[in-house]
Amino acid sequence: MPNIKIGLIGYGGIGRVHAAAYRAIPFHYGLPADSIQISAVATTRESTARAAADEIGCDEYSADYRDLLARDDIDAIDICTPNNSHHEIALAAAAAGKHIYCEKPLAMNESEAFEMAEAVRAAGVKAQLTFNFRFFPALTLARQLMAEGFCGRAFSFRGRYHRSSYISADKAMSWRLQREITGGGALFDLGSHILDLLYYLLGDFAAVNATLDTLIKQRPIAAGQGETAPVEVDDIALLQARLADGTLGTVEISRMGTGATNDVLLEIFGDKGAIRFDLAEPAWLQVYDVREGDRVRGFRKVEAVGRYAGQRAPDWSMPPGFMRAHAECQYQFIRAIWDDNSPEPSFVDGLHIQRIMAAAELSSARGGWVDLAG
Amino acid sequence: MPNIKIGLIGYGGIGRVHAAAYRAIPFHYGLPADSIQISAVATTRESTARAAADEIGCDEYSADYRDLLARDDIDAIDICTPNNSHHEIALAAAAAGKHIYCEKPLAMNESEAFEMAEAVRAAGVKAQLTFNFRFFPALTLARQLMAEGFCGRAFSFRGRYHRSSYISADKAMSWRLQREITGGGALFDLGSHILDLLYYLLGDFAAVNATLDTLIKQRPIAAGQGETAPVEVDDIALLQARLADGTLGTVEISRMGTGATNDVLLEIFGDKGAIRFDLAEPAWLQVYDVREGDRVRGFRKVEAVGRYAGQRAPDWSMPPGFMRAHAECQYQFIRAIWDDNSPEPSFVDGLHIQRIMAAAELSSARGGWVDLAG
Amino acid sequence: MPNIKIGLIGYGGIGRVHAAAYRAIPFHYGLPADSIQISAVATTRESTARAAADEIGCDEYSADYRDLLARDDIDAIDICTPNNSHHEIALAAAAAGKHIYCEKPLAMNESEAFEMAEAVRAAGVKAQLTFNFRFFPALTLARQLMAEGFCGRAFSFRGRYHRSSYISADKAMSWRLQREITGGGALFDLGSHILDLLYYLLGDFAAVNATLDTLIKQRPIAAGQGETAPVEVDDIALLQARLADGTLGTVEISRMGTGATNDVLLEIFGDKGAIRFDLAEPAWLQVYDVREGDRVRGFRKVEAVGRYAGQRAPDWSMPPGFMRAHAECQYQFIRAIWDDNSPEPSFVDGLHIQRIMAAAELSSARGGWVDLAG
Amino acid sequence: MPNIKIGLIGYGGIGRVHAAAYRAIPFHYGLPADSIQISAVATTRESTARAAADEIGCDEYSADYRDLLARDDIDAIDICTPNNSHHEIALAAAAAGKHIYCEKPLAMNESEAFEMAEAVRAAGVKAQLTFNFRFFPALTLARQLMAEGFCGRAFSFRGRYHRSSYISADKAMSWRLQREITGGGALFDLGSHILDLLYYLLGDFAAVNATLDTLIKQRPIAAGQGETAPVEVDDIALLQARLADGTLGTVEISRMGTGATNDVLLEIFGDKGAIRFDLAEPAWLQVYDVREGDRVRGFRKVEAVGRYAGQRAPDWSMPPGFMRAHAECQYQFIRAIWDDNSPEPSFVDGLHIQRIMAAAELSSARGGWVDLAG
Repeated sequence: MPNIKIGLIGYGGIGRVHAAAYRAIPFHYGLPADSIQISAVATTRESTARAAADEIGCDEYSADYRDLLARDDIDAIDICTPNNSHHEIALAAAAAGKHIYCEKPLAMNESEAFEMAEAVRAAGVKAQLTFNFRFFPALTLARQLMAEGFCGRAFSFRGRYHRSSYISADKAMSWRLQREITGGGALFDLGSHILDLLYYLLGDFAAVNATLDTLIKQRPIAAGQGETAPVEVDDIALLQARLADGTLGTVEISRMGTGATNDVLLEIFGDKGAIRFDLAEPAWLQVYDVREGDRVRGFRKVEAVGRYAGQRAPDWSMPPGFMRAHAECQYQFIRAIWDDNSPEPSFVDGLHIQRIMAAAELSSARGGWVDLAG
Repeated sequence: MPNIKIGLIGYGGIGRVHAAAYRAIPFHYGLPADSIQISAVATTRESTARAAADEIGCDEYSADYRDLLARDDIDAIDICTPNNSHHEIALAAAAAGKHIYCEKPLAMNESEAFEMAEAVRAAGVKAQLTFNFRFFPALTLARQLMAEGFCGRAFSFRGRYHRSSYISADKAMSWRLQREITGGGALFDLGSHILDLLYYLLGDFAAVNATLDTLIKQRPIAAGQGETAPVEVDDIALLQARLADGTLGTVEISRMGTGATNDVLLEIFGDKGAIRFDLAEPAWLQVYDVREGDRVRGFRKVEAVGRYAGQRAPDWSMPPGFMRAHAECQYQFIRAIWDDNSPEPSFVDGLHIQRIMAAAELSSARGGWVDLAG
Repeated sequence: MPNIKIGLIGYGGIGRVHAAAYRAIPFHYGLPADSIQISAVATTRESTARAAADEIGCDEYSADYRDLLARDDIDAIDICTPNNSHHEIALAAAAAGKHIYCEKPLAMNESEAFEMAEAVRAAGVKAQLTFNFRFFPALTLARQLMAEGFCGRAFSFRGRYHRSSYISADKAMSWRLQREITGGGALFDLGSHILDLLYYLLGDFAAVNATLDTLIKQRPIAAGQGETAPVEVDDIALLQARLADGTLGTVEISRMGTGATNDVLLEIFGDKGAIRFDLAEPAWLQVYDVREGDRVRGFRKVEAVGRYAGQRAPDWSMPPGFMRAHAECQYQFIRAIWDDNSPEPSFVDGLHIQRIMAAAELSSARGGWVDLAG
Repeated sequence: MPNIKIGLIGYGGIGRVHAAAYRAIPFHYGLPADSIQISAVATTRESTARAAADEIGCDEYSADYRDLLARDDIDAIDICTPNNSHHEIALAAAAAGKHIYCEKPLAMNESEAFEMAEAVRAAGVKAQLTFNFRFFPALTLARQLMAEGFCGRAFSFRGRYHRSSYISADKAMSWRLQREITGGGALFDLGSHILDLLYYLLGDFAAVNATLDTLIKQRPIAAGQGETAPVEVDDIALLQARLADGTLGTVEISRMGTGATNDVLLEIFGDKGAIRFDLAEPAWLQVYDVREGDRVRGFRKVEAVGRYAGQRAPDWSMPPGFMRAHAECQYQFIRAIWDDNSPEPSFVDGLHIQRIMAAAELSSARGGWVDLAG
């Protein structure tokens, strides 16, 4: 297998996570250290790009991401920039024949997402999205169980992603609250994750009935300042959803979920079984099997550790953390290049999530159910 | 305080619970054994009425509830009959000047409920509804905290009542699935409880956006039979709700909640605090206080035992069960008679719950938000 | 079945619990109200005895328990007095041919317990001890599973009973801290319960290696007083134990278990399965089955509600509380009289618990392992 | 700060973990990629050493660890070999003036441990032990709280480390069951971790009363073979312990803890507060504060994420995993070199743990309490 050389675009918090995760993969899978390399990094300023290169341990850096696309020795680019640049960079990268690994959500809106999915299909490059939560082993197990029909006919589901990051009215504006940068609020930032997990486990969404709201409508323009500016995006989004197969469900997304740091929960209820995941216990999947004798039937807490196929480090019996799931997500992308497979979650998957979010926004504006485009 | 003599109408499962709970009250509060007596019981047949009287230990019984209303020595009647008879009995009881304790939901529909609330007001009798969950001490504590502003401005809430009683398509029809007897399905049977708890803690509902569905539309007319009949009521109800003060929330109600026996949960998120209750741990209330120093801030599990005011039995330090909460609910009714106070939850409260349910049904039929009548 | 007439001796907190529980039994099992009656009550003073009779609703009372033993119409006596009177009353009751229901622990020491077990055997009366925790349905289920070999060969176990009732050094002396009244401290009061549960599930104890300690050695003689008196009994007891079949285990008993109201836990680990019970979730038993496929193996939380054989009240699906377990314990005693069976837990069982506690005290005094007398 | 060059000795499972963790540190703390380097690796065979170097990405490797000690460009060595070589390597490394990072337990026995602690003291090199659990932020917080007197006077504690790795009698012998390689069994392997955590939070142990046992005494010499060999070490160890300050506690250590993958629990009960940690929820610390008003007092679940001082990667709000705690443990070692501080946990700490384990073995052999050497 050829060494994979990556150009990393963006080196804020999440860029650093991706960089660290690439470097961890060889240890997790017993690969040569140089089998996955970050060859160059681009940010928007030369000083930050140089600092990033120093931390990553690569020689090349630039203040223009196009410099990375122009290099022949780069196989893939990794997009860790704000949402409003994903579309431009991805289209340019596809045109340059680079494989693409992109942070979520895919785009600012459905039309951008559609063009991006089309572009990578047309260019024949591998393209994957960072829906890292899928790669907690408990959720990989959940997917396998769903695929095998463990739950039987799904009756209903519930998803939640709560953070409490904005409960204080004194908290100042940030780029996360500006629509032109993010495309959306809690629905985009947190909702994209939980919607992807539900889609991953249950399949296509058909329609949504959503209520979005901005509970604190004005915030200080900077910490401690009296002047305020309007918050342009939702900080809470409540969805009812009907899936293509008729399953009904409910989703709660909030940045005002008092007490929550990252409260990610999902539940599926079916006629043969039920499944629960709670990020508070990241190593466990709860499963309920209706087929069991009723005397000792109950939710079973399965410790889903040691389940990454092929892993070699002896952390198999320990709770995997945030970094481990990122490393796995990125490893699947690298493997898809090596094995010439289609990586998942794909840009088409990302487009579906974008459609759910667009339908939710429309539903909230109109009131009532809205069918997904498609 | 005069001894209170009760006429019990209906002696199915819940009638037996009420009878047992009345008998337990003197022990919980150190009252004379005869301070609360069931003087007579009525069912629809003489044989069952006689058997009930034997079990209760009272001499009088009848196959006609009007016989109880005609007796001068009966102070209060307790209605434990199916929903479709509540209205008739309550109006007759009010006309007879009897105090009334009535099982939930109050009525078959909003107009019945309105007439019942009016009738007891006009007659000047005490009237209380059996929303027994309020009387778990953890929820009494929650109410006190809410009244004191513990949560500050409420951002959002969530409620759930799941049972799994109807997940099997082989399960036959029952009176619980017939609209003419019950008035409604899971929404009425389970939903009335959780809606009341949210109303108790958070106040009036203003509007709902609901989806009701019947997931299994035909069931055998009797166990093991091939012939089926249509299920006339919802078995799942998903609600978004906006309260009078603007708080947004979501409610999940289902008889198809695989794995649940009685999964009753509620959560309130506010800018100063949050509250959680889970019936799986009936003695605990979880509270989160934003005002605490952030180093050791977190959800706190408060053991709400030993909190019934005036209780004497030493079960104060033990988890109260289903029967204890019923006894407390009934004791509040008796106390309201003795103290000439207005008992809670009142018929006006029950009317509000009925209005939420009516709006939810209308919302589901129409699609989109429906304001509550009022 | 003849009506059973009971003479209740002692009407402090626990006497009131027993009285209420007898009265609840007919409702739980559909029996005539008069099938179980408290005919008379005795306390040490006429005024308290009269008040007790008033609350219970019986005509007869006395300040001398012997008056109850002398009555022909009393079938059984129930001993709710302090530990230091159990021996005298039980011997007198056996001599009078009365069946006996006695609060735990059985006696002040092993020799008293031995004489009591002998006395009831010789008299041929039914005699049962109030180890009420056995009668939570989760623990009844645990016993069935153990009897069926669910856990296979037991490797080890753990038990705990923590309360926090004495963590404050300002808390004054009470009769619970005086050896001449109680016979022992936390080991007797709390330990007898958890030792009985382990014995119930696992069988005979063979030897113990225990450490008892009094962590606060002097307490005020009364609340707020400067004068102190020595605490004569243990407030913490740590045991290692070896059972007759070789299983090893550990038990923690403490009145200084900060944060605990009634923290009762037990765990059994075997080569085929494991079992856990936690009183914080009184309706659940956790079970782990090694025989399951390892992909979805895990601790399963079984909701052990609705499991009292023959129960009729519809609280079957609700978490049973403290009172319900007492009612069941007492019902088993009444059934043993009706069916002429041997009730459990018997005085012989109580004697075994007394022997474990005596061995633990000796072990702590000596240091090292002590075999149980036998 | 000079770049730190490390020689890694041993590259089995735990060697790979250490290597990956060193590489992650620059990303967690924003350091240049080359600030921490593994310069050379040694294993016992050239082929495995070469493969390790390839995976690590270093040029130098050897089949003799002495080659690493002889290199001037190596600042520190990291010992990831079996327990029976720690003493020899550490003494040689100290003699060579290398700083030492060593896997737990420190040594085969107390005298080896004593010599190692002496050797690093005399040589003036930094020496740290891998007690990686200390570095979950929840436990760092616990240590701070204990240091501040949060719990007041400690009454008692409990610790547990359960795995289920050896519950099957069919499981074959391994080096973990051979005393000459490991020095001890579950007590050494698992017990050293939990004993260190208790020591970290509570201070010196004074005496132990322990029972060790080998529950399965013979195992197949290899998988599927009929021939068996004796298991030479304990697979369960139950300890009662008294600390230097008088606190009493109990510790359960088992490889036969059915259902457990890594069940690590600790609890401390004091007159002012209590603390709990459970590895199943690695990001949470539970605290109970007696000083709070009793109405809403309870165990509080504090989400201890985002608490590594100086960390830059945005995983601060996510549950840290096994690898993150290792990285932190190693970072503290590197920082101690840079800052010329004494790293913790030190070899003196490791010696104390060795003394507890030696006393426990002696106690089990003799029966009864044994004071620690000192």
